[in-house]
Amino acid sequence: MLRVQNFTVSADGYGSGEGQSLDQPFGTANPGELMSWFFPTASLPGRSDGSGTRGLDDLFARDWAHGIGAEIMGANKFSPHRGPWTDLSWQGWWGDEPPFRTPVFVWTHHLRPSFTLGETTFHFVSGSPADVLAQATEAAGGLDVRLGGGAASVRAFLDAGLVDTLHVAVAPVTIGAGSRLWTSPSELEDRYHHEQVASPTGRAVHHLFWR
Amino acid sequence: MLRVQNFTVSADGYGSGEGQSLDQPFGTANPGELMSWFFPTASLPGRSDGSGTRGLDDLFARDWAHGIGAEIMGANKFSPHRGPWTDLSWQGWWGDEPPFRTPVFVWTHHLRPSFTLGETTFHFVSGSPADVLAQATEAAGGLDVRLGGGAASVRAFLDAGLVDTLHVAVAPVTIGAGSRLWTSPSELEDRYHHEQVASPTGRAVHHLFWR
Repeated sequence: MLRVQNFTVSADGYGSGEGQSLDQPFGTANPGELMSWFFPTASLPGRSDGSGTRGLDDLFARDWAHGIGAEIMGANKFSPHRGPWTDLSWQGWWGDEPPFRTPVFVWTHHLRPSFTLGETTFHFVSGSPADVLAQATEAAGGLDVRLGGGAASVRAFLDAGLVDTLHVAVAPVTIGAGSRLWTSPSELEDRYHHEQVASPTGRAVHHLFWR
Repeated sequence: MLRVQNFTVSADGYGSGEGQSLDQPFGTANPGELMSWFFPTASLPGRSDGSGTRGLDDLFARDWAHGIGAEIMGANKFSPHRGPWTDLSWQGWWGDEPPFRTPVFVWTHHLRPSFTLGETTFHFVSGSPADVLAQATEAAGGLDVRLGGGAASVRAFLDAGLVDTLHVAVAPVTIGAGSRLWTSPSELEDRYHHEQVASPTGRAVHHLFWR
């Protein structure tokens, strides 16, 4: 199964703003606002002091890794660089212990050698969504594959009919321009069952889709 | 951590009705009504055909086993028998492959030898809630312990201040008499943060508590 988990977009459907850079991984969008439902939860990666909320937002947060054996992410989730690699020192945004702890397949035209950081190995693959999914599925060893975004990658796999379930959190902010997932969640209702649940925190409306 | 997960009560707070028996594990309560939020989900134990819903109810259903290393259950969850064991052939309601797949500690005055069914080993223990939790915590090997019910057992551990988080699903049915968890969920608000979320299915209101 290919699952989108905890992917967060603005009320107007953008996963990130324009102008991504090293200092602004979400471009003009403010990740602190966009992801405000996620940061206070007990399951925030790296939190080890037992603090954090354990309500509905945390239930979504902690489901992120369960049953997942590999991740597929778009090139722009991995890096702000564009075009061929000129410097291989970039190893992602996540420090020495990336939270994935599975093989990660970075979908890109610009290949480079695989490398391992902590418990995560990054592979760089091109080809169609179906090709990439086949590689990730084999690496997942019978577990599910998570499609990690960004919005353009989720759209490409959706358009190829390859996504089995989606959890998308819609934050009460607008971005206005950038990488867009949808105009409205209802666009997917021709192909998916759809439930939406407003978090009691008011920080997101959680949308669930399945076939 | 000691966690209550997916424990289901009626709108009037009962986890089961009066008159539990071999044919009626929930006494006068109809488990098909009480648990109607749970049975359609993709995560129902034993479902292997890929069917089932994957909305909010399923998110709760599939969280049941994650991070859990042992369960504590009351004697009445294990068996309809009362008093000393006269026949050790009873091995629970769950067939040859109980869904727990961890050590299970049955809290009872009436001890009997441990036994293993599939991947689950049942132990029979007496003593205070703190004594039982200490044994289960040791068996859980660093993972959390689930408190599986029934209502009287949850009450006993709550009254001893030992429960860290609770997920209780409230079904839109009334039972009227039996084993009662509470008059109202608000009773726990002096000790816990509390969120409630109505399932889009209408089959339960999910209540989350944490300290």
